[in-house]
Amino acid sequence: MAEQMTAAVLHKVDDVRIEQVPVPEVKSDLDVKIRIKAVGVCGSDIHFYREGRIGDFVVKEPIILGHESSGEVLEVGNAVTHIKPGDNVVIEPGYPDRTCQFCKTGKYNLCATVPFMATPPTDGAFCQYVVWPGDFVYKVPDNVSFEEASLVEPLAVGLQATKRAHIHPGMRVAIVGAGPIGLTTLLAAMAHGATTTFISDIYPMRLGLAAKLGATHTINAKDTDQVQAVLDVTHGEGCDVVLETAGTPETVRKSMAMVKRGGVVTLVGMSAEVEFSVPMMDIIMREYDVRGVFRYANCHPVAVALLASGRIDVKPLITHEFPLAQAKEALDFSDTRKDVAVKVIVKP
Amino acid sequence: MAEQMTAAVLHKVDDVRIEQVPVPEVKSDLDVKIRIKAVGVCGSDIHFYREGRIGDFVVKEPIILGHESSGEVLEVGNAVTHIKPGDNVVIEPGYPDRTCQFCKTGKYNLCATVPFMATPPTDGAFCQYVVWPGDFVYKVPDNVSFEEASLVEPLAVGLQATKRAHIHPGMRVAIVGAGPIGLTTLLAAMAHGATTTFISDIYPMRLGLAAKLGATHTINAKDTDQVQAVLDVTHGEGCDVVLETAGTPETVRKSMAMVKRGGVVTLVGMSAEVEFSVPMMDIIMREYDVRGVFRYANCHPVAVALLASGRIDVKPLITHEFPLAQAKEALDFSDTRKDVAVKVIVKP
Amino acid sequence: MAEQMTAAVLHKVDDVRIEQVPVPEVKSDLDVKIRIKAVGVCGSDIHFYREGRIGDFVVKEPIILGHESSGEVLEVGNAVTHIKPGDNVVIEPGYPDRTCQFCKTGKYNLCATVPFMATPPTDGAFCQYVVWPGDFVYKVPDNVSFEEASLVEPLAVGLQATKRAHIHPGMRVAIVGAGPIGLTTLLAAMAHGATTTFISDIYPMRLGLAAKLGATHTINAKDTDQVQAVLDVTHGEGCDVVLETAGTPETVRKSMAMVKRGGVVTLVGMSAEVEFSVPMMDIIMREYDVRGVFRYANCHPVAVALLASGRIDVKPLITHEFPLAQAKEALDFSDTRKDVAVKVIVKP
Amino acid sequence: MAEQMTAAVLHKVDDVRIEQVPVPEVKSDLDVKIRIKAVGVCGSDIHFYREGRIGDFVVKEPIILGHESSGEVLEVGNAVTHIKPGDNVVIEPGYPDRTCQFCKTGKYNLCATVPFMATPPTDGAFCQYVVWPGDFVYKVPDNVSFEEASLVEPLAVGLQATKRAHIHPGMRVAIVGAGPIGLTTLLAAMAHGATTTFISDIYPMRLGLAAKLGATHTINAKDTDQVQAVLDVTHGEGCDVVLETAGTPETVRKSMAMVKRGGVVTLVGMSAEVEFSVPMMDIIMREYDVRGVFRYANCHPVAVALLASGRIDVKPLITHEFPLAQAKEALDFSDTRKDVAVKVIVKP
Repeated sequence: MAEQMTAAVLHKVDDVRIEQVPVPEVKSDLDVKIRIKAVGVCGSDIHFYREGRIGDFVVKEPIILGHESSGEVLEVGNAVTHIKPGDNVVIEPGYPDRTCQFCKTGKYNLCATVPFMATPPTDGAFCQYVVWPGDFVYKVPDNVSFEEASLVEPLAVGLQATKRAHIHPGMRVAIVGAGPIGLTTLLAAMAHGATTTFISDIYPMRLGLAAKLGATHTINAKDTDQVQAVLDVTHGEGCDVVLETAGTPETVRKSMAMVKRGGVVTLVGMSAEVEFSVPMMDIIMREYDVRGVFRYANCHPVAVALLASGRIDVKPLITHEFPLAQAKEALDFSDTRKDVAVKVIVKP
Repeated sequence: MAEQMTAAVLHKVDDVRIEQVPVPEVKSDLDVKIRIKAVGVCGSDIHFYREGRIGDFVVKEPIILGHESSGEVLEVGNAVTHIKPGDNVVIEPGYPDRTCQFCKTGKYNLCATVPFMATPPTDGAFCQYVVWPGDFVYKVPDNVSFEEASLVEPLAVGLQATKRAHIHPGMRVAIVGAGPIGLTTLLAAMAHGATTTFISDIYPMRLGLAAKLGATHTINAKDTDQVQAVLDVTHGEGCDVVLETAGTPETVRKSMAMVKRGGVVTLVGMSAEVEFSVPMMDIIMREYDVRGVFRYANCHPVAVALLASGRIDVKPLITHEFPLAQAKEALDFSDTRKDVAVKVIVKP
Repeated sequence: MAEQMTAAVLHKVDDVRIEQVPVPEVKSDLDVKIRIKAVGVCGSDIHFYREGRIGDFVVKEPIILGHESSGEVLEVGNAVTHIKPGDNVVIEPGYPDRTCQFCKTGKYNLCATVPFMATPPTDGAFCQYVVWPGDFVYKVPDNVSFEEASLVEPLAVGLQATKRAHIHPGMRVAIVGAGPIGLTTLLAAMAHGATTTFISDIYPMRLGLAAKLGATHTINAKDTDQVQAVLDVTHGEGCDVVLETAGTPETVRKSMAMVKRGGVVTLVGMSAEVEFSVPMMDIIMREYDVRGVFRYANCHPVAVALLASGRIDVKPLITHEFPLAQAKEALDFSDTRKDVAVKVIVKP
Repeated sequence: MAEQMTAAVLHKVDDVRIEQVPVPEVKSDLDVKIRIKAVGVCGSDIHFYREGRIGDFVVKEPIILGHESSGEVLEVGNAVTHIKPGDNVVIEPGYPDRTCQFCKTGKYNLCATVPFMATPPTDGAFCQYVVWPGDFVYKVPDNVSFEEASLVEPLAVGLQATKRAHIHPGMRVAIVGAGPIGLTTLLAAMAHGATTTFISDIYPMRLGLAAKLGATHTINAKDTDQVQAVLDVTHGEGCDVVLETAGTPETVRKSMAMVKRGGVVTLVGMSAEVEFSVPMMDIIMREYDVRGVFRYANCHPVAVALLASGRIDVKPLITHEFPLAQAKEALDFSDTRKDVAVKVIVKP
């Protein structure tokens, strides 16, 4: 009989159970087996937990959630040379087919067939062990804790957004939304050299955290007109880059109003409404770009380097930790306590 | 008393008069005085003629229309060395302040203070003589006729669109709309090496012209689903680049549906409706860009080189010519006979 | 006993033998088995034939030469869906590991472990059948002959050079050397929209061919100072891009003298001397780039699209054809008759 | 008689005199008159002082040296709106013609007619007042001292180098030479997000300063093989970007040996030898770029933003200050005491 491990398994909406499931095994030369040490709770985990679906992805079979994970290497396939048992690592939660036109041109995030952790039918990391292709597992040095390493994935999202936005030193950048992705995007923008950084949200605790991380201007969107606030500081010009992470029609429209002529708005936050009205002709009149951001490609090594070098410190984002046995409580807390929680971590 | 010249002056909606007005004079060292030889009629001329305004630009004083012009140099200021009397030239119809951040970074089309021909309060070229800053006047070799040279401006629009879209050899490109700008954009896309080119319109004559110019697929949008037509040929992938020149909410939405994952939609055509509903989240899910195109910067020399080298032939676009005395008839014809007219030229 | 096929095998310097060797077999799901129809003779084939080595690559065991190949698909592995038996195809002669940082970022030509056809120890295509990974085999439509398709590989070299050089419509481009690579580079530069194209060589026949292909200025370097010729036409400015394909210290120096301030020199041609004196400080004073070109990445599909669309015609480059039984004669002819031979093709 | 001011005037080699010269006046609408407060001594000042020339620029008439300057606005022309009397400012020491192709495309540093401070025949800033075109004068906020502001110019050089090198977060970067330009280049590379930074020099004091500024690896090139040191840390890969600021044939060759496949070497440091032997074929074999850096374009505003935001601190570079009356001593000290001096500042 196969060896067993503990996992938090989502059976259906609101139904997460701590169960024993078979330990996965190294099967191909590229595989790596990892003992999971820390896993962040992501908004998408909560969506599956609360609604049983995200768009076309529907939970039909029991699935293990969690895809922001770090751990320790236990075993590697014969073709794996960049890591070895005992190494601390992070896992990039999707891997592409490596042979299509997108993979061959460096945009592997657009590959049509990416199994992605905690997205049906691929299991995630709220469990003790994961086996994953070694080319999507990255070594993390000892000066980065497992908890910090679990933030590499959301930081990679921020880095994909800032890479797509072509942020350069001296730029003025606005980040709309100060949730975990808004905050990692802020850190990414600062790593590119942004010197004026606006960030807006409705939770004072998150804005306080953003200020602590180095945002030069925090805006409480509950009582302040964030577009006007940005225009006031920038002498009516707007920002070189606006990074939308809040994911609502209204914040998308505000993001477009905040950008400078010839600038870039990147859309990161998914809105429940997929189609809505925006000032499309303004894109022509002020010749700016609206660019989508879908997951990430080649961002995990950058995120690791930024943490390892101390250039970015994600520790302030980690507000709460739960043991694996309380994965359900971690999901509940992350969902309902946005006033105090930023990143909630599950530790197997 | 100042020397007089003939000009077609718009006084108010539908009221264009052939009048005598003072000949402009070379005043600064940078100025060039040009005898106008050919001027294309543009959609914006028709807007001012029919509606008296385009957005915030309102015709309050009499104004000379026409901004797609070529001619012969009569006189140059002391600082002008690249052209001399007797040279054939084209005029770039807007000139920036040369000192702002946009001018200094090569995006002078975004300069806040661009006097633009035939846009209130700046007079255009439906007249005999124009004086214009020499750095926005370009020499045209003898193998390019004045009529062809008057097409440099609309070709520059197409080139700005294709430059903003980063078209490379081998790409599949769709152009939505086969009016004068759609057709020059098609020619520009082919100059960048696009190998599969879709173009759609509702006028059979324009589609026939597009095919003659080299479009590989022409689509009559009246009776064919253009999105489906593009997807059929591209095996469901869509085009690397979609260039929207039709300027309606519906064609913008269709353009977004035609683009490939990771591709680019450039918006060129101005819609009367400035705000409308589009599938914004699709921009994230398929990580593409929507990029505005506002006029042009550094495109006139490229357009001249393409005509001079024979790489682009714009002669098939010139369907009708009128003398200056019939400028009003030229505007009327261009407006009402889209079934047979593409580019209508006024010749002083 | 394994099925046998005919192959031209290089045993040592000047020793090519027509022999029977085992037919290769489809082994992995990604493999494709191809009946070879046409193979171009490349300069590197001649180097191995005449000198037994290129740099660190030394012929120690018998090897089949030839890497510019096309053919017909006979059999495909289970994972291959983009081509099927009966399809005409071209083979990209190197395949990378698909997992390293270079592969993941779209620069797979820089992958450290690329088996490359006809480079020890990997056999080439002067034979009847080849088995190759399907992601490096591309379908060619029926309107492209096998002979033309064998030119896809040298055209891919030209396209890598022009891609690295960022050629745009309207640019002035100089190509140094009008051998097969110089000529495909010329065609590639024209596909990007170059409007003024200089090309230099010492063989009149090659220059005549370049003119026929569309070069606007051909320069016989035997009796003309090519740098001066370029400066004369460009009013002392030089070219936006210079593509060096001749591979000598002198032509590299001349290439640097031909480039415009802020322009790009790409180095394609390998010189026997690897280290030599050049005006390095001129790179600073005129702020230009010198960029290397090593093989290609993602250029084969572009080359196929350009041939299939008729945008590029390589037929004029094909000057001679030999049957496989005369592979040695093909190598000799290609080596010694540069006065009349451009591309020599071997047909199994 | 015109008002007089004190200036340090270079008459001929080694002959700098403190003299009274006429105060310059605001003549055009664009002009700004500035009371100079701090001026850094640059290597080029020392070249003119010691040798009377740099390349083709020869001191034939008496000239005021100094071009790294800051001061206070006294008077502005009618067209100047972005600064007003009383503002603190830095001066960009060259201004282009604003009308040529280079100016119009954002590469104004390549304009053929740039009057450049302290380069014959244009006077510099070792004096009390300067009049300069307002579009090349930038406001500096109060939290930046005049001394720091005088470092904006050398920081702009570093930023041009890092912009040309396309440095992104997470990159490994080597800076060769830790003089004032090497150190500002280090700061610029860090502002772009470089996480591993090597810097080499032969002066321990400069290396100590580099470490204090944040360099992760300092290499004393006197006793350490810097190429090997870089390869050891990077597992034989080399750096993504190498920025050469030492300006010798040997360090250029070493820079090329330090760069990673597909990377970029930027040349900043001028060597007295303008032509020398380098491994040119290595550029092909490892497909990297060698890019020149000539002065800067659009870098001063970025440098000001970086200082104003506190993202870059240049104070540690300022090692010595002299009054204007001791300009000659400042030049001598800067020239002869590289063991202790980094940036020497003259204060009128």
